[in-house]
Amino acid sequence: MDALGVAVIGYAFMGKAHSAAWRNVGAVFDVPRYEQKVLVGRDATATAAAAERYGWAESETDWRRVLERDDIQVVDICTPGWTHAEIAIAALAAGKHVLVEKPLANSVTEARNMVEAAARAESRGVFSMVGYNYRRVPALALARELVAAGRLGTIRQVKGSYLQDWLADENAGMSWRLRKETAGSGALGDIASHVVDLIQFVLGEKVRSVSGRLQTFVPSRPGPDGLEPVTVDDAAWATLDLESGALASVEVSRAATGRKNALQLEIYGSRGALRFDLERLNELEFFDSDLPLGEQGFRKILVTEASHPYLDAWWPPGHVIGWEHSFSHQIRDFLLCIEAGRPPSPSFAEGLQVQTVLDAISRSSAAQGTRQPL
Amino acid sequence: MDALGVAVIGYAFMGKAHSAAWRNVGAVFDVPRYEQKVLVGRDATATAAAAERYGWAESETDWRRVLERDDIQVVDICTPGWTHAEIAIAALAAGKHVLVEKPLANSVTEARNMVEAAARAESRGVFSMVGYNYRRVPALALARELVAAGRLGTIRQVKGSYLQDWLADENAGMSWRLRKETAGSGALGDIASHVVDLIQFVLGEKVRSVSGRLQTFVPSRPGPDGLEPVTVDDAAWATLDLESGALASVEVSRAATGRKNALQLEIYGSRGALRFDLERLNELEFFDSDLPLGEQGFRKILVTEASHPYLDAWWPPGHVIGWEHSFSHQIRDFLLCIEAGRPPSPSFAEGLQVQTVLDAISRSSAAQGTRQPL
Amino acid sequence: MDALGVAVIGYAFMGKAHSAAWRNVGAVFDVPRYEQKVLVGRDATATAAAAERYGWAESETDWRRVLERDDIQVVDICTPGWTHAEIAIAALAAGKHVLVEKPLANSVTEARNMVEAAARAESRGVFSMVGYNYRRVPALALARELVAAGRLGTIRQVKGSYLQDWLADENAGMSWRLRKETAGSGALGDIASHVVDLIQFVLGEKVRSVSGRLQTFVPSRPGPDGLEPVTVDDAAWATLDLESGALASVEVSRAATGRKNALQLEIYGSRGALRFDLERLNELEFFDSDLPLGEQGFRKILVTEASHPYLDAWWPPGHVIGWEHSFSHQIRDFLLCIEAGRPPSPSFAEGLQVQTVLDAISRSSAAQGTRQPL
Amino acid sequence: MDALGVAVIGYAFMGKAHSAAWRNVGAVFDVPRYEQKVLVGRDATATAAAAERYGWAESETDWRRVLERDDIQVVDICTPGWTHAEIAIAALAAGKHVLVEKPLANSVTEARNMVEAAARAESRGVFSMVGYNYRRVPALALARELVAAGRLGTIRQVKGSYLQDWLADENAGMSWRLRKETAGSGALGDIASHVVDLIQFVLGEKVRSVSGRLQTFVPSRPGPDGLEPVTVDDAAWATLDLESGALASVEVSRAATGRKNALQLEIYGSRGALRFDLERLNELEFFDSDLPLGEQGFRKILVTEASHPYLDAWWPPGHVIGWEHSFSHQIRDFLLCIEAGRPPSPSFAEGLQVQTVLDAISRSSAAQGTRQPL
Repeated sequence: MDALGVAVIGYAFMGKAHSAAWRNVGAVFDVPRYEQKVLVGRDATATAAAAERYGWAESETDWRRVLERDDIQVVDICTPGWTHAEIAIAALAAGKHVLVEKPLANSVTEARNMVEAAARAESRGVFSMVGYNYRRVPALALARELVAAGRLGTIRQVKGSYLQDWLADENAGMSWRLRKETAGSGALGDIASHVVDLIQFVLGEKVRSVSGRLQTFVPSRPGPDGLEPVTVDDAAWATLDLESGALASVEVSRAATGRKNALQLEIYGSRGALRFDLERLNELEFFDSDLPLGEQGFRKILVTEASHPYLDAWWPPGHVIGWEHSFSHQIRDFLLCIEAGRPPSPSFAEGLQVQTVLDAISRSSAAQGTRQPL
Repeated sequence: MDALGVAVIGYAFMGKAHSAAWRNVGAVFDVPRYEQKVLVGRDATATAAAAERYGWAESETDWRRVLERDDIQVVDICTPGWTHAEIAIAALAAGKHVLVEKPLANSVTEARNMVEAAARAESRGVFSMVGYNYRRVPALALARELVAAGRLGTIRQVKGSYLQDWLADENAGMSWRLRKETAGSGALGDIASHVVDLIQFVLGEKVRSVSGRLQTFVPSRPGPDGLEPVTVDDAAWATLDLESGALASVEVSRAATGRKNALQLEIYGSRGALRFDLERLNELEFFDSDLPLGEQGFRKILVTEASHPYLDAWWPPGHVIGWEHSFSHQIRDFLLCIEAGRPPSPSFAEGLQVQTVLDAISRSSAAQGTRQPL
Repeated sequence: MDALGVAVIGYAFMGKAHSAAWRNVGAVFDVPRYEQKVLVGRDATATAAAAERYGWAESETDWRRVLERDDIQVVDICTPGWTHAEIAIAALAAGKHVLVEKPLANSVTEARNMVEAAARAESRGVFSMVGYNYRRVPALALARELVAAGRLGTIRQVKGSYLQDWLADENAGMSWRLRKETAGSGALGDIASHVVDLIQFVLGEKVRSVSGRLQTFVPSRPGPDGLEPVTVDDAAWATLDLESGALASVEVSRAATGRKNALQLEIYGSRGALRFDLERLNELEFFDSDLPLGEQGFRKILVTEASHPYLDAWWPPGHVIGWEHSFSHQIRDFLLCIEAGRPPSPSFAEGLQVQTVLDAISRSSAAQGTRQPL
Repeated sequence: MDALGVAVIGYAFMGKAHSAAWRNVGAVFDVPRYEQKVLVGRDATATAAAAERYGWAESETDWRRVLERDDIQVVDICTPGWTHAEIAIAALAAGKHVLVEKPLANSVTEARNMVEAAARAESRGVFSMVGYNYRRVPALALARELVAAGRLGTIRQVKGSYLQDWLADENAGMSWRLRKETAGSGALGDIASHVVDLIQFVLGEKVRSVSGRLQTFVPSRPGPDGLEPVTVDDAAWATLDLESGALASVEVSRAATGRKNALQLEIYGSRGALRFDLERLNELEFFDSDLPLGEQGFRKILVTEASHPYLDAWWPPGHVIGWEHSFSHQIRDFLLCIEAGRPPSPSFAEGLQVQTVLDAISRSSAAQGTRQPL
């Protein structure tokens, strides 16, 4: 296979993170050959500077031109959610493998169109994937393995939360992330999406119905011309019924003072339990009821052994890795799937399914919490 | 004031815990004089043995006879919930100060009758209190002080949970606690009651409406004659709207493998945050946003300083106390109120209000999660 | 057996703690019958008040008179270290069972005399014990069980420390505890003694030689008439060679800002490891190398199960106990030994042996750290 | 300034880690331009593969040839310690800036020669640095800032340890790291070196004298032809006297079961304290005695704010970084010093000074622990 030509679209936070992953994945993992061809952004000067800094051979301001190039096989979309559908559908139509940042889209309608485009492309051997990168945190991949191996027995109860505090300050300013028309939703789409995806990923099953609640604590925030209304949620809560009968709670907030990036997951089964916190992402706590009663306890597995997912390629035990490598691992898996001709996961369809869960949470919130089937 | 004569009714788990508190409170705190007069239980032999062991001068099998005694001024009711109303109302009518274990009663109707009896008694200088003992854990009393002092600013979000695992094993046997007719409810009344009470206590405000969900994971359990249906919940979830606009989530379970007595509270306000875990009850984590940004962090206050609530009477700093002393502190406060002629808190009315919150959670669960006003 | 008559000598910090233990041990554990007869102190009024408060039938100002009483069989000595030898030797001579607070004595010479007296008494069925109460913390008793069962394999390395901070403030005042003539030593005798005893207790073996260092950070402190010289150590360090070839480090301080009562023990063996912290005394961390590599981790055992040492008499799992009950358990074990006619441990000889280790640390410090055999 | 041409010598563990740093530092930080020119190793095929993988333009088997090249300005030495002196001295003589992995050398004699060479080179504007990379962990850089700002007051006591367990298994095999002639020493040079350097770095002062102890728990290990003697230490202990009067303890081990990479530092001063653990390297615990007593506690600062050292170039708060970036930061600082014409730190002289501390620990161990001046 020739080296895959890669284009990343977007050079802000996510563009920087994905670029770091592209810069490193080949040095750490055995993946098909690829080349960091082009970085795309609207501002020519800034994009050129970012391209040079982040290791891209060229920069470009028009993503459509990139789709026309024969030397680009992979398009990695890091722009805001409202642009995903248009770019991804065009890229797939142009025969490019597509990785798109989560959320898949801002609306279920857009997401449905993307899923259709992905299905058409896949029939032609062109693959797509949505960027729920936390699936690739080794501790969470290990959690899924333990659940799949039955080490927790029947899963009954899951407690998921994702707490941040960058909106705790009432004077934190207005931005596109706080307007419904650009962001779709607030904490719900931004971070509850991760929690919902992870619960389904780790448990290996789907949500059937939800009850939910959205809340905006700070209804207006300072913009350039004075206070503007915030039209998305600051926080969201839900209880999810899963196919197996398990129940999961979800609580997310961007106004939880003191929590910086606290994606926490607790999973309780009949034979064991797990606990994870993204602020300590190299650790997984495991409670094993099969041990003698007097010796049971949550044990802190430092997920840095060669036998742990992704870790054989890294450092000796105890040498922890950072948040950024959830992206490195994501690209590794994406590349391996392209090489093997195997559809990567999470697919656009999986991304859409998460959207429908979020959508049902919104509906439930509007309906006073009444449970909504999916 | 003459020494108060005290009777405890019930000698099982709660009777043992309350007896320990009566045995110690006078040795640690400056409280009015009292005497451990009589322990009441149905089984004469067992009650006599318990009385001797736990430091009671006499034992008795009929609580009604105790109410007739002139040398008894305080009745402490530690029997199961379905007996509370009858005993408490009779005791108040007999002019005894009454402390009753939580929950106040198994039904709202019973609780209402108790509140009326308490009001009548209070007009005669006879006081009553319901045993939400965790209010007297020093770290939680400190939490309330910090909130009341404005150190957290506007409270926005509270995460409360109480997880135990003594029903995680499907083969754990049937008991009166698992039948609706004797227990009223399951985890809801048993432990969600504590969470609801504490949220209102620490925040100093009341719940206005709720959305809730109950679930029974193990629908039948072995009894003496084979499997019997479990008619109460194993776990419960709720979101509570509070008067101030704050939202609280509640999650409780008696099937959360690995959690033994994990009553956890997280409180997020505009200026700070708190975290508490009953399994580490001598600690309170406090995040203070008023500190310089680069020095902020959750700090683990070891709540053993003389300046902390209740602690001046105990040991030097760092010498931790146990769960049992939530009861010692409860009795201290009860006795001081009796001495001062001041109604103690939580009153029966407060206990009833918690019941109505739990009742609304049940109704919401039956109504597919639809929000219920109080 | 008739009820044992008990006298406690001393009503300050330790007298209060031992009194609490005597008040509760019979209510919790199955022990021989005893009666709280008399509390002894030099100040008649204060002692009488303490006796009433702590549950003693009488008070007394002269410990010699107590030794003459026929209704006293047990003498529990809670006075400062310089008084231990005289009282204990007299009490044993008078045929009383003796429990003496640690350290056994302020000097090795005194301790030797006490050991001789104890041996003479034991030959007449009169028993003695020194109060290294932390052996009776359930988590530490469990640690010893795990080591004895070989769960850690060959022990190689132990890290013991005991850090407090009540002398961190340079203006903390002068007291008898800071004068060599009254206290014997500083942190060494006060808290390193606990660490040395525990290391030997948990490992089940003795120290053979030591290298040590003492340091006084604050050489003078305010007394009633101005600054006075501090003549004991604020902190001490040692490395201990044990019989098996294991090495242990000891670090203690009363000036370690932020540490209140942090007695920490880490034990590393060829098959596992343990970690304990007195500030979280209901927990024991256990690392078990026999588990599959990818699942290994320090697990936090909440030492509150009925199968754990001392716990079957207490509360349900997860209901933590306090520091004070190390004394309750100590008295339980003492009483059970008296009943069984079995010498209790730690004996005076064990207490002397700890003194000789501390003495060797002092000598080594004076000799520039040169290793000293015992 | 033209782009600096960079050569890395060595492609094993450290060569991989340094390569990762070179691959990323320019994408994250504003540093002078540089080019990843050549990777040097003895095995031509393996080196060529590593060069391609790690992003080096060329590979080379003879480090001397690299020194002759005009397009190389920076030589980064990642080979075992016994080769450092020869390569570094030659590179400096050839006018190359030199970064050398720690320890500086295997013997004090070699280290002295390197210091002389570095001094000569520096007079010609050629700089050198030794790779104590943990100085560049943001939390430890923050620790130094807090100490320097006086936030801890007078430092009295430091507890440093570095525990690993890769030699806990008696059957772990023989290697060059376990022979004195190749490794110089065992845990002492390998990991105690880091602890000693960090203590001096964070405190900003030097060790004056030491007492120490070395121990080999497993005296022989399996080699290709049977058991071979281990001639270095498995573990080491020391107490260090610092210039200010502070005392530091050091404990290191490569046989501490369950500890993977546990470099821990606790610093106690008159006004505050700090705690750090490399296994949670994004966190720093800070106890601030200036706060009101009842609110004091160790607070867990998540060192990911833009105001923290090195962090403004990384991700938003709460997005943790990995161990590898201690090297990225090290190279950033090295490059900035080269650009500014300012000698980087730690210099070879600082590296030598650490060696002399380690040497004194060895001497003290051989002298039964007797304190050795530096």
